[in-house]
Amino acid sequence: MSANLSDRENQDSSPQTRIERQMQAMGKRARAAARHMAAAEPGAKNAALFAIAEALIAGRSSILAANARDMRDGRDELDTALLERLELNDKRLEQMAEGLRQVAALADPIGGITDLNYRPSGIQVGRMRVPLGVIGIIYESRPNVTADAAALCLKSGNAAILRGGSEATHSNQAIAACISRGLTDAGLPADAVQVVETTDRAAVGALLRMPEHVDVIVPRGGKGLIEFVADNAQMPVIKHLDGVCHVYIDDDADIEKAIAIAVNAKTQRYGTCNTMETLLVADSIAEDVLKPLSQDLRQAGVELRGCQRTRKLLGASVKPAADADWAEEYLAPVLAIRIVDHMDEAIDHIETWGSHHTDAIVTESVTKARAFMRAVDSSSVMVNASTRFADGFEYGLGAEIGISTDKLHARGPVGLEGLTSLKYVVFGDGHVR
Amino acid sequence: MSANLSDRENQDSSPQTRIERQMQAMGKRARAAARHMAAAEPGAKNAALFAIAEALIAGRSSILAANARDMRDGRDELDTALLERLELNDKRLEQMAEGLRQVAALADPIGGITDLNYRPSGIQVGRMRVPLGVIGIIYESRPNVTADAAALCLKSGNAAILRGGSEATHSNQAIAACISRGLTDAGLPADAVQVVETTDRAAVGALLRMPEHVDVIVPRGGKGLIEFVADNAQMPVIKHLDGVCHVYIDDDADIEKAIAIAVNAKTQRYGTCNTMETLLVADSIAEDVLKPLSQDLRQAGVELRGCQRTRKLLGASVKPAADADWAEEYLAPVLAIRIVDHMDEAIDHIETWGSHHTDAIVTESVTKARAFMRAVDSSSVMVNASTRFADGFEYGLGAEIGISTDKLHARGPVGLEGLTSLKYVVFGDGHVR
Repeated sequence: MSANLSDRENQDSSPQTRIERQMQAMGKRARAAARHMAAAEPGAKNAALFAIAEALIAGRSSILAANARDMRDGRDELDTALLERLELNDKRLEQMAEGLRQVAALADPIGGITDLNYRPSGIQVGRMRVPLGVIGIIYESRPNVTADAAALCLKSGNAAILRGGSEATHSNQAIAACISRGLTDAGLPADAVQVVETTDRAAVGALLRMPEHVDVIVPRGGKGLIEFVADNAQMPVIKHLDGVCHVYIDDDADIEKAIAIAVNAKTQRYGTCNTMETLLVADSIAEDVLKPLSQDLRQAGVELRGCQRTRKLLGASVKPAADADWAEEYLAPVLAIRIVDHMDEAIDHIETWGSHHTDAIVTESVTKARAFMRAVDSSSVMVNASTRFADGFEYGLGAEIGISTDKLHARGPVGLEGLTSLKYVVFGDGHVR
Repeated sequence: MSANLSDRENQDSSPQTRIERQMQAMGKRARAAARHMAAAEPGAKNAALFAIAEALIAGRSSILAANARDMRDGRDELDTALLERLELNDKRLEQMAEGLRQVAALADPIGGITDLNYRPSGIQVGRMRVPLGVIGIIYESRPNVTADAAALCLKSGNAAILRGGSEATHSNQAIAACISRGLTDAGLPADAVQVVETTDRAAVGALLRMPEHVDVIVPRGGKGLIEFVADNAQMPVIKHLDGVCHVYIDDDADIEKAIAIAVNAKTQRYGTCNTMETLLVADSIAEDVLKPLSQDLRQAGVELRGCQRTRKLLGASVKPAADADWAEEYLAPVLAIRIVDHMDEAIDHIETWGSHHTDAIVTESVTKARAFMRAVDSSSVMVNASTRFADGFEYGLGAEIGISTDKLHARGPVGLEGLTSLKYVVFGDGHVR
């Protein structure tokens, strides 16, 4: 990009200023591309998605070579888990391509008009679904996010500026080249998806400071990244912080369902945000539930930490839970357990210690299910189902850019609709007030 | 409120710290009240709205006395327009009470579940409309906002912290006492609507710095206030900045409709955000439209500023328009006029200089109406109607807390729905993944 700047300018400026200028230029190009994308027909957007999928498969060898370089560069610095996330192979490339084709198959979210009604004045008022404009996405090691995020932004008629992890820089550039080619092949502006080239962290700061060019930022990654973005972005942020999810097993629970749900919510996967971290059990049913359940959980290798009553019931092999346990997202085979007197105490616990992500009640009582559903202020509230269902694909969104724990705009799993907005449309025939 | 703090604490702390502590305590009470309000039945909320209306009428003499004191205090400092806004009388009190009754008559927005569908896994997934939680509203001189804003927050199941202008402090406190009484009479927590008592500006800063207690801030007032809030709030802001609204008169416009709409959009009221500030006219129709229109506008006392082509057509009595004119929200009997070659140039002008508030096209061409509607990225886009229709009441929202020029969450006129969010609800029967 610095080719766009004269040599003189480059010599004059500090690296920070130069990067800011590069990012500003990128933002302007994105804004111009966003106008094209907003008006693009569904057919053109889908053609681009298929063309990108094709380019990824055709570009197989250059992508894998670039990825091998990232893997080599990272060998000494990155741990096994990070290297595992960074690695691309034939299967992962095919999954990326298939993901693009699946997004193409989704209904086009843009341009639909709803609630078009005549008003007493004679005008007709409705709402049209429109793109947000330019979306900035900041993410960490997985290079497949480059293709996934591009696909969702493209389908929803937005332009995107993508900033991946520096450890995946060569992989991301190789994927970006395929995206560019696919967009151009379909007659759409290549600037509709731009991948930041520099690995300088100043680029992130510059991106967060240009609200005139970027309408919303989506950070995807660890808590440190998300907090940094939330604290520094001058535009709205769609973000996901903690997932401290609860299952409350009520007096009126069916014990078999309760045990199945608790085991699944804790053990199906440990590292996901919708995994149960705290189990709440009504006192009157605690013995019948916790004795068999604790055996199942221990067999699965889950460490139990409990309140006093839980330890009295299950024995001292259950470690004592401190206040910090109620607030912690373990993301590990650890479960905090608390026995409560009744549902209201469970709701109080959830509202006090939870993260408003996903919380479930197990009960056969319609009355209590209704009350819990209404009182718990979380992005997903469930009755007799595992918290692990809180997911864009399970909910039928067809795709997911992340799960939002914010209350405004998008709440819970965010699919294409979360990358759009509604504007009012008014039709008259010379009407005046 | 300082009665809640011990004397020792008061003595120890600087005014700033004391105010911060007061605001924190207020925030905690609001959060607790919000939980009650979220579960409150429609009947109780409506009963409170009627009871507040009654209390306002019954409290007539004390409210008018408090208002007289504000008027007396402000006599030397405030200009006539501000004093006019500040003044209460029998008619305005009755309007406030009637506004409360009208909000009671609206459909309850909370708890409705939509899109409840079975998924392949067997779970049922839907979305429930829920309150945002605690809403902070910061506004200027009009004391009626205290009752209006309280009504909307209450009806939408939220708790509110209201901070009015210091010039209206006695009026606002008197109205707050009526709100309190109405809430209590209906069995709802009085803390559901709290009015900040201190006139110290530090209270505003403290309010903006407690995202743990306040979910969203709505600033209502001049641009200075709104920019201060947007820059300093640590929570999302629903805000309205400029209203630089355009009418574009196309080649294919009906000339009579075009003139009627342009006159109405400019002259019906000058000081409103949905008033036209720039008129764009297609070259081929300019003479037929602008000659009669300019006479009408001049008769109404509107000063005209035009591009070169406009001045060539209408004469040198039209002042030359500088770039600054295209960006200005006059809020006055002044109109900028520009002749463009075609619709695309008009759209470019709107996207370059506009504020994405409300923009209209006058045309008989279906093709151009469709293209304009799609391409113009404003909160309201109109065909053959006056921009003055961009209003919550005209759109059928039943009430309006403001007009948002943001893209995320609420866009355009914001009614009750803008004070709510959607959470996912999931029903299963022991379902696991």
